[in-house]
Amino acid sequence: MREVVIAGIGQTRVGELWDISLRSLAYQAIKAARRDANGLMPDALYVGNYLAIVTSHQSNLGTLLADNAGLTGVEAFTCEAGQASGGAAFQMGFMAVASGYVDAALVVGVEKYTDAIGSEQEAALAISMDADYEAMVGLTLAGQAGLLMQRYLHQYGAPRSAFGAFPVLAHANAVNNPFAMYRRAIDQQTYEKAEPVADPLNLYDQASYADGAAAVLLTTPEKAQEAGIRHPLVRVRGSAGVIDTLALHDRPDPLAFDAARYAVQRACEMGGVLPGEVDLFEMDDAFSIYAVLGLEAAGFAERGEGWRLGQNGDLRLNGRLPILTMGGSKGRGNPLGAAGVYQIVEAAQQLRGEAGANQVTGARMALTLNLGGPASSAFAHVLEKR
Amino acid sequence: MREVVIAGIGQTRVGELWDISLRSLAYQAIKAARRDANGLMPDALYVGNYLAIVTSHQSNLGTLLADNAGLTGVEAFTCEAGQASGGAAFQMGFMAVASGYVDAALVVGVEKYTDAIGSEQEAALAISMDADYEAMVGLTLAGQAGLLMQRYLHQYGAPRSAFGAFPVLAHANAVNNPFAMYRRAIDQQTYEKAEPVADPLNLYDQASYADGAAAVLLTTPEKAQEAGIRHPLVRVRGSAGVIDTLALHDRPDPLAFDAARYAVQRACEMGGVLPGEVDLFEMDDAFSIYAVLGLEAAGFAERGEGWRLGQNGDLRLNGRLPILTMGGSKGRGNPLGAAGVYQIVEAAQQLRGEAGANQVTGARMALTLNLGGPASSAFAHVLEKR
Repeated sequence: MREVVIAGIGQTRVGELWDISLRSLAYQAIKAARRDANGLMPDALYVGNYLAIVTSHQSNLGTLLADNAGLTGVEAFTCEAGQASGGAAFQMGFMAVASGYVDAALVVGVEKYTDAIGSEQEAALAISMDADYEAMVGLTLAGQAGLLMQRYLHQYGAPRSAFGAFPVLAHANAVNNPFAMYRRAIDQQTYEKAEPVADPLNLYDQASYADGAAAVLLTTPEKAQEAGIRHPLVRVRGSAGVIDTLALHDRPDPLAFDAARYAVQRACEMGGVLPGEVDLFEMDDAFSIYAVLGLEAAGFAERGEGWRLGQNGDLRLNGRLPILTMGGSKGRGNPLGAAGVYQIVEAAQQLRGEAGANQVTGARMALTLNLGGPASSAFAHVLEKR
Repeated sequence: MREVVIAGIGQTRVGELWDISLRSLAYQAIKAARRDANGLMPDALYVGNYLAIVTSHQSNLGTLLADNAGLTGVEAFTCEAGQASGGAAFQMGFMAVASGYVDAALVVGVEKYTDAIGSEQEAALAISMDADYEAMVGLTLAGQAGLLMQRYLHQYGAPRSAFGAFPVLAHANAVNNPFAMYRRAIDQQTYEKAEPVADPLNLYDQASYADGAAAVLLTTPEKAQEAGIRHPLVRVRGSAGVIDTLALHDRPDPLAFDAARYAVQRACEMGGVLPGEVDLFEMDDAFSIYAVLGLEAAGFAERGEGWRLGQNGDLRLNGRLPILTMGGSKGRGNPLGAAGVYQIVEAAQQLRGEAGANQVTGARMALTLNLGGPASSAFAHVLEKR
């Protein structure tokens, strides 16, 4: 495989973006990434998206978004793996360049969640669960996360309040991220007073679904140099996708998040690094229980101990393992099929030393983990400052 | 890039398969392809699908179908490019093996169109057009094809009846395909008497949308040999995807099918072959006008002359350029997002000498062309008997 680098990054603000269409939203991110890559022309566009077919009645986003960005004649299609679609699309772009099939590929993650409203949104979100055996009986993603959280509390005796550390951290980190949905800190008390959503899960245990688009331009180091790019390049050292059962009830141990475990292992193996060597971890906090289980699956804590990492400052920007450095899904907002690309963009900001007030000092290596549902799919990537 | 071969193929009957679910249908094709590849274990599953999110309320098919086939722990996601999704998924599988990322990849195309009924089906199909500027005003795929056909008749003065050659050929070839939806021949008179759908397009100018699943197992020649596979291997020599504008009205020359032109050119260039060297052409005949324009775009006829190829027997099994050898979408049925994988399976049957009564004598090289909408996306592949 050829060496692949991130030559350009771009993102839009995350939020309820009622006044912009799906195609225009994606275009803003594409434009920013292309400009950041000194206008380097991509040969392909891979789209990470999860809901547009339902919320915007639009498929074939590869064609639509490439066409709308003036990229007629490139290759383009959508990669879909539920909420892990962004991770899948990034892997596709990586593989297209690594294999030598193209010299430069654009990856855009986009979600226009607010193209649907009210109960349409709930129905839309349910499509990533098992339609016949989960969604059919009325289970929702939040309900599923509530069940996982309850089981965790029961099995490990963790204090309920410990989960608050994750949204509190995410909101704190989002304050300085100009693209974040919630640029305000919350405290533990606010967390504890929040309304229940699916007991024991409360309003702050769940990241808000939102609109947003993020893009990266991938190429070879040689092409990046030819294009005269001045900013540091970020090398993609490892990439892995792994699935688990789609339905949560089919797993012998629902708290294991095995797909996340193996994705992190394989991506690190491919990159020749140990998870412990990374300087930051952009992980999935769609629900606070996902963050806890993700930390355990990635090997940063023993089973049943992940919640403790939130208690002692380890996960803060100046801690041993900074996570959610630009606010994660809880603070930045959760743009679903685009979340995986946001993670990559944010990790690249850190590795390039462009994370402003949230800069992790001396960050050289980052790990990302993007989950579809409760780790029904997982995509992990290892990125390094070149 | 490493050499990639097709080590296994599988397909289900195409039709209105009311009594089988999406996951079981896909499993039948996967099982057949894996058995055909002597049980060779894939490391990844790529799914070509277009409508399941709407018709079956199910996304994340990569996880669902891999899980349901007992492939837990592999990597999996869906590739979507409208009706060209099968071609996109096949390319993804090719790239995953060619790059060295995995040693064996399964590709499955599946469509369960009849999970929706009546007007739901029409709404579902409309998602591959431009939602804001085409579908919104009531344009349908058949309406679009009718406009193209009218324009073609006007511009080139082709006789209306000439289009009948394509469905007549497709039905004739489907008679001997046990997986085909319509195993009965039709004659020119039947064609000419058919009801109009979107004038000048009639019932036989349009392939019936249907359910079906097809799968291929891709690997390296070494791995195939290790698995002790006895049947001939088929090498993937070229692969290319190209987009055009999504909306038909955005094209300066709507009859050009430029995406198809460039996809065929690039796939042939990658394979180091000329289109004229292929022994058969599995092309897109979702509408008879697509077949005519596809022949012209691929360079087998001058602009405005594609219809003539149907008149002199050139396209028959014993002709100069056999097309739709197992019935194409018109005779076999059009399983939409799975159609591109059916084309590959059928071409492989020919190259392996397993096409029975429809065998193209001495076939060694095949070209496939899978279109999303009116060539809004196009994927072309060059396959060769090894």
